[in-house]
Amino acid sequence: MALQARVLYEFTAEAGNNELSVKEGETLTVTNKSIGGGWIEAQNFRGEVGLVPEDYIEASNGNDPWSTWNSNNNWPSNPEGTQTGKSAADPWNSQMQAHPQAYQGPGKNMTSLNMFSMSRFPGFSKPGPELFLLCKQLVKGKDKIPVYVSEVGPVWLYPESQLDCVVADPKKGSKMYGLKSYIEYQITPNTTNRPVNHRYKHFDWLYERLLDKFGSAIPIPSLPDKQVTGRFEEEFIKMRMERLQGWMIRMCRHPVISCSDVFQLFLTYKDEKDWKMGKRKAEKDETVGVMIFTTIEPEAPDLDLLEVEQKCEQFSRFTKAMDDGVKEILTVGHEHWKRCTGPLPKEYQRIGKAFQNLSSVFTSSGYQGEATLTDALTEAGKTYEEIARMFAEQPKKDLHFLMENNNEYKGLLGCFPDTIGVHKAAIEKVKEGDKLVAASKITSQEKGAMAKRVSTMSYALQAEMNHFHSNRIYDYNRVMQLYLEEQVKFYETIAAKLRQAHSQFTTM
Amino acid sequence: MALQARVLYEFTAEAGNNELSVKEGETLTVTNKSIGGGWIEAQNFRGEVGLVPEDYIEASNGNDPWSTWNSNNNWPSNPEGTQTGKSAADPWNSQMQAHPQAYQGPGKNMTSLNMFSMSRFPGFSKPGPELFLLCKQLVKGKDKIPVYVSEVGPVWLYPESQLDCVVADPKKGSKMYGLKSYIEYQITPNTTNRPVNHRYKHFDWLYERLLDKFGSAIPIPSLPDKQVTGRFEEEFIKMRMERLQGWMIRMCRHPVISCSDVFQLFLTYKDEKDWKMGKRKAEKDETVGVMIFTTIEPEAPDLDLLEVEQKCEQFSRFTKAMDDGVKEILTVGHEHWKRCTGPLPKEYQRIGKAFQNLSSVFTSSGYQGEATLTDALTEAGKTYEEIARMFAEQPKKDLHFLMENNNEYKGLLGCFPDTIGVHKAAIEKVKEGDKLVAASKITSQEKGAMAKRVSTMSYALQAEMNHFHSNRIYDYNRVMQLYLEEQVKFYETIAAKLRQAHSQFTTM
Repeated sequence: MALQARVLYEFTAEAGNNELSVKEGETLTVTNKSIGGGWIEAQNFRGEVGLVPEDYIEASNGNDPWSTWNSNNNWPSNPEGTQTGKSAADPWNSQMQAHPQAYQGPGKNMTSLNMFSMSRFPGFSKPGPELFLLCKQLVKGKDKIPVYVSEVGPVWLYPESQLDCVVADPKKGSKMYGLKSYIEYQITPNTTNRPVNHRYKHFDWLYERLLDKFGSAIPIPSLPDKQVTGRFEEEFIKMRMERLQGWMIRMCRHPVISCSDVFQLFLTYKDEKDWKMGKRKAEKDETVGVMIFTTIEPEAPDLDLLEVEQKCEQFSRFTKAMDDGVKEILTVGHEHWKRCTGPLPKEYQRIGKAFQNLSSVFTSSGYQGEATLTDALTEAGKTYEEIARMFAEQPKKDLHFLMENNNEYKGLLGCFPDTIGVHKAAIEKVKEGDKLVAASKITSQEKGAMAKRVSTMSYALQAEMNHFHSNRIYDYNRVMQLYLEEQVKFYETIAAKLRQAHSQFTTM
Repeated sequence: MALQARVLYEFTAEAGNNELSVKEGETLTVTNKSIGGGWIEAQNFRGEVGLVPEDYIEASNGNDPWSTWNSNNNWPSNPEGTQTGKSAADPWNSQMQAHPQAYQGPGKNMTSLNMFSMSRFPGFSKPGPELFLLCKQLVKGKDKIPVYVSEVGPVWLYPESQLDCVVADPKKGSKMYGLKSYIEYQITPNTTNRPVNHRYKHFDWLYERLLDKFGSAIPIPSLPDKQVTGRFEEEFIKMRMERLQGWMIRMCRHPVISCSDVFQLFLTYKDEKDWKMGKRKAEKDETVGVMIFTTIEPEAPDLDLLEVEQKCEQFSRFTKAMDDGVKEILTVGHEHWKRCTGPLPKEYQRIGKAFQNLSSVFTSSGYQGEATLTDALTEAGKTYEEIARMFAEQPKKDLHFLMENNNEYKGLLGCFPDTIGVHKAAIEKVKEGDKLVAASKITSQEKGAMAKRVSTMSYALQAEMNHFHSNRIYDYNRVMQLYLEEQVKFYETIAAKLRQAHSQFTTM
């Protein structure tokens, strides 16, 4: 029987790309659901057949039958995403909308994250922390993740040379005999210096693996919004690449993630076969969710529960407070962006025009010795028109990076509630220790083990927080320097232009 | 029988000044109409008695009975004037409104001017140009006003040293045993260097005399708005003095006006007696209205009617065009003023606050080595708050003078339609010449004389236009230099402050 699907979000087809434009609420018949790559082939009531992003539709008859091909993708975190894509077609005024995550204001990112962490993050849904707290043997040997104690407190083991990579050279590729096209990025790590190619869906796969494996211990920021329409437009590709680069650098900087097999595979696979094998291996990995803590080995004395709890509380307070601060900056920055690209240039343009109009009136006076003034007035007018253009251009040169940085941190901070949640749950379990023993649900040895395990978790959390702090301090220093540097240039240039205009006037 | 009066505009009494607050439409009984100084004493329906500005009321039973005390004042050119006064009490946000003329937008000034030029300008109402065109003998001797021909065309005779004066030191005086108080200004001409005192009403008297005597040949700009409420508030006094100074300087700069007896009297009277006598003499002057042309003696060949007409047309086109250009600048400037004192500072303040908030969140991290970043972020935030203040303060330092200058020219240009009107009327009369001779209304000699007279008028107009042009070029050069200079300083200061903030950040 043919599957009926209801359209959730409007989707506009890319020309010459075998896609089908659909309207929200429209009903489709799925003609081929095994296209893959997040696409299905469907037919609308007019009999037109084409490809539609599977994220944009749902089964008319409940969700279950789809689970097969619907299982490995999350619903689009923001329907705005679609508008974004469309308006990005006009890259000028859409500068703002072209940053869906960055400028859609507070809240969005977190909700989407929580949504899928609940629905799709094995670490959270059923298997609670007790899985680790009570598990029998810990991982031995090379898979261990040590935690040391430095002068700033517990820290991960940092590699001598920091891993780094460049995401570049987006190319349009196609498959299925040109039936479907996609964008492929070239990623070159500083270790091998050998470029590998990946599509967005591969980044997405990597993200899923990292989230499954490390999510309980390490917040894994989500990728730049998955987005379907407008994804072949230059503006959008540039922006996505910039953000994938940012995401990769953050992952490279992380001592635990950068050393993981799956991440290394992504950056250094030799050929298709190598990649396929690595993928299969990674998907079979069982040390995921809370079990990651079985691999963590703090080289420090156990912490008592109270201390563990205090630390956890402190981190949760800080990340919440920073999340608010970051969102405030994003809101204010968004406002400022709109003013700098909207009313301000218009106003300076009108000032410029007014001066030039007066100049041409003066020219008509028929009085001699008029030229110096009229020339000067015209130049002054032109200068203000230039200043108008400068204002409209400036945000791309400075505010953009300030916004991107805060947007990245908004995403990162959005992961902490889940990570910290795991710790809180563990702490609660340990608190129940005595009850559980009394109810002979666990032995007193197991209760002791639990205390030890929660201390391990706390060391991991502290190491992660210290990693977060040092990166934060570096990132904010860097981005503020860049922002202020550009702002200084901006105002200096305006002053210089005005000084030039000033020099044209004379008082006889 | 007691005179009944209807209130035209709301008026709010100055505290401790024996004034009576009245509402528009309210009916009053006039208890004393010989108070003088533009005031009458009246009683409201509650029996309260106090002083009310006579401009603000009219006779319930027609205008005539009032003519006695109502004759020598014009209706307030803008009722906004009253609001202006009131809100000037809060000098901060009222910066704009504190400039009624400057920022009330196009049109106002002209209408008010036309209004009273029609009703109260003898040169226009009944006695038309024929009074001069056909008058028998011209003035002889020292009262002559010569017109020379220079390389720019016809010009007035300019004195070797230019007259100048300073209006300063406004003092609150009072009369009628402190019943009424007023502001007295000190005016010091550069010729005698001896200060004389005058109240606004004396300036107004001088204006009336100049308008009567020279108005047909020389546009006499109106005084800064007559205004009643708020006139004892510092902001307002400062503004009015600044504008009286501007008006006086313009009059001093004019070769014909500056040399006139009445103007000299105003600046150099020795004592009360001298002043009173001079006043009486000036008020008896009969060479007013179009008769001023009897004193003008061009040292140049007569112009033919066509040339006269073309010149007249050209000047009328130019002044109209400039009037539009000036009003455009005033409108745009007004907009800009509002933005610079309203939304912009608010926005920079919010940016500053956002940085400072983030800084204090960071301080709470408990991570060591945080201080450098948080201090730098705080300073950056404070810098943007400073920039906010700078934006709010700037218009007073530059835009204000640009607006004042254009406002002055708006007033001046508003006088040209009347002045040019006299010339057009004269030209029409001369065109009728033949008809009038045929109808033996005039002799052919008189017709010839008329042609000669209209040529004289044209020389006067050309001399006045050339005077206007040279002043205009000087004024606009000056004000644009001042404006741009301050703008350069403004942007340079911002750049310097931001550079300082930038230097606080480090990338370890």
